[in-house]
Amino acid sequence: MSAPGDFAVEAVDGAARAGRLVTAHGVVETPVFMPVGTLGTVKGVDPAELRAVGTQILLGNTYHLHLRPGEDLVAELGGLHRFMGWDGPILTDSGGFQVFSLAHTRTVDDDGATFRSVYDGDLVRLRPEDAMRIQADLGSDIAMCFDEVPAADAPLAEVARAVERTTRWAERCRASPAAPGQLRFGIVQGGTDAALRERSARDLMGIGFDGYAIGGLAVGEERDETFRVTAETASLLPVDRPRYFMGIGDPEGILRVIAAGVDMFDCVLPTRLGRTGAALTAHGRLNLRNRAYARDPLPLDPDCPCPTCARFSRAYIRHLVAQRELLGMRLLSVHNIAFLLALAAQAREAIVEGRFDDFQRAALERLAGDD
Amino acid sequence: MSAPGDFAVEAVDGAARAGRLVTAHGVVETPVFMPVGTLGTVKGVDPAELRAVGTQILLGNTYHLHLRPGEDLVAELGGLHRFMGWDGPILTDSGGFQVFSLAHTRTVDDDGATFRSVYDGDLVRLRPEDAMRIQADLGSDIAMCFDEVPAADAPLAEVARAVERTTRWAERCRASPAAPGQLRFGIVQGGTDAALRERSARDLMGIGFDGYAIGGLAVGEERDETFRVTAETASLLPVDRPRYFMGIGDPEGILRVIAAGVDMFDCVLPTRLGRTGAALTAHGRLNLRNRAYARDPLPLDPDCPCPTCARFSRAYIRHLVAQRELLGMRLLSVHNIAFLLALAAQAREAIVEGRFDDFQRAALERLAGDD
Repeated sequence: MSAPGDFAVEAVDGAARAGRLVTAHGVVETPVFMPVGTLGTVKGVDPAELRAVGTQILLGNTYHLHLRPGEDLVAELGGLHRFMGWDGPILTDSGGFQVFSLAHTRTVDDDGATFRSVYDGDLVRLRPEDAMRIQADLGSDIAMCFDEVPAADAPLAEVARAVERTTRWAERCRASPAAPGQLRFGIVQGGTDAALRERSARDLMGIGFDGYAIGGLAVGEERDETFRVTAETASLLPVDRPRYFMGIGDPEGILRVIAAGVDMFDCVLPTRLGRTGAALTAHGRLNLRNRAYARDPLPLDPDCPCPTCARFSRAYIRHLVAQRELLGMRLLSVHNIAFLLALAAQAREAIVEGRFDDFQRAALERLAGDD
Repeated sequence: MSAPGDFAVEAVDGAARAGRLVTAHGVVETPVFMPVGTLGTVKGVDPAELRAVGTQILLGNTYHLHLRPGEDLVAELGGLHRFMGWDGPILTDSGGFQVFSLAHTRTVDDDGATFRSVYDGDLVRLRPEDAMRIQADLGSDIAMCFDEVPAADAPLAEVARAVERTTRWAERCRASPAAPGQLRFGIVQGGTDAALRERSARDLMGIGFDGYAIGGLAVGEERDETFRVTAETASLLPVDRPRYFMGIGDPEGILRVIAAGVDMFDCVLPTRLGRTGAALTAHGRLNLRNRAYARDPLPLDPDCPCPTCARFSRAYIRHLVAQRELLGMRLLSVHNIAFLLALAAQAREAIVEGRFDDFQRAALERLAGDD
């Protein structure tokens, strides 16, 4: 097992799986949380810190990197890995989600999408072939298909049209050239409708991809719906291919999608929370702006071995946050990433040992102790 | 040589010296640049990074730490070293400079100064005894006397009064309790007047301190005046005690005060420049906001071995700066600190080898190539 794309499921416990995915830049043990490096940097965190806390794979955003600094510049500087100083695996999204969530104005036709850049308002055209070429130029290890993401409250006919278009676009993405060793994942759409999800999954499996993502969820629908649709969709996907839930990063959500049979997941949550002064812990979130922590000598999470918790008190970090010191955002971001990586690693261990249910139940109970 | 305060001059070359100062938290090899950790953090930089680039001693600001988070809180959390996760030597200033440069309104009498906090406008009273008690509570390795700093354009009579008051306050500081192993440095005032500088130096030497600082310079006077007064003042100070120039951090200035016989110096410049997108290099400053660096594959300074230059291109850092990414400020700050530490270390080597004049001339010529 050594060629990019090789994926072995090493253990199954209920629907939860422990696997190993080979990429051109190394092996990823799943379930795995992927920190997001939107613009070629996980906000405020150094690649050496990411490595130190056990990061296996990063996510980069095609939409943002296309606009700033541009894939041609990144390619000229040796590709995204070299540009950002990260020699491990990188997954790039396709820009689909950003086009549909960030674009101020957009028009979509069967050939692609046209939207205005969030950076300068310039009109930008993105077709499936463009999304794949950009990702090939960036040189990521896993490229995502360009998809149409309907809103959570979109009428069923609109969701059906998005499924149809996502399938046509996936065919064009599959036919586009990839970087050497670059894997391609299809993205299942279909909102919360079981029939549409099934159709989308079967369409994509018919085309054939190295892995399959569950997209268009966690966009505003009820949370129980998210996990129901995730479990249903995951059960339709090939057992021998990795499954990726796009955009979930809260500890409860991570546990629930792992339970539903998901192998990979990403979110900006740990760094976004870090920049706003919040810490994830086994006992819920801490808001470090709270005066209650002003003299608290404990680390953010007493059970966490990360470089932040090994060295600094809540009192110190609360002081940094109160004074808007850059180091505070950074120490919190590093801890939050370390916490989610550790949660996924603990889930993996529990799956391998056949005690995932117990692990999940105990973890969810502890997490419910939010302050 | 192992008791705090021991200072050995190991080599002299012209007026320049290479020495070793023992503190309660380790030995400092001089000449030495001291990065400034105003509020218990060198802005944006992790203590592990400071250590990795060769930082020997940090500076903390009594004025700021007294107001935020307060020395009582720092003491309760184990002192400044433990609070900020830095186990090397720390020098704290006395607050004198901040009182005179930052205070919106202040009244000074023979007993002390009253001013409004920059944080909340509260009225704060600071007397020499307070400044020493705060520094003892912080637990720094070197405490500075509370001094009166006249403006660069102050009339001679006002400068003379500040010298007189600084001497009286120095006596009171000397009589105040210190933390275990804490050294005390006096601060020579006197503006650009040779007679007043001499009087101030003799007054302080009469009281007797572990080291002597040259204060009240680089506050707006002509640059040649700065270095003339520094050389004259340094020549009056005991050869067997360390000399500290307060507040200089540009490469040229560092070389010039070393040439004048100064052993220690500090400045916020490397981190301030880092936050505004500028890099110090052997060939002058680079403004990374400049589009000229957009595709430049070179490191900030091709001769620099720091973690920033070893891993990242100007193009990448320019991208981070252009997108206001936190990592950009941080990588630049680390490099700028590493650059000044290396400059002082190279100066030390040149002094030891008796070639400081040649070293300084060559370094100044290279630096003049500013972009």
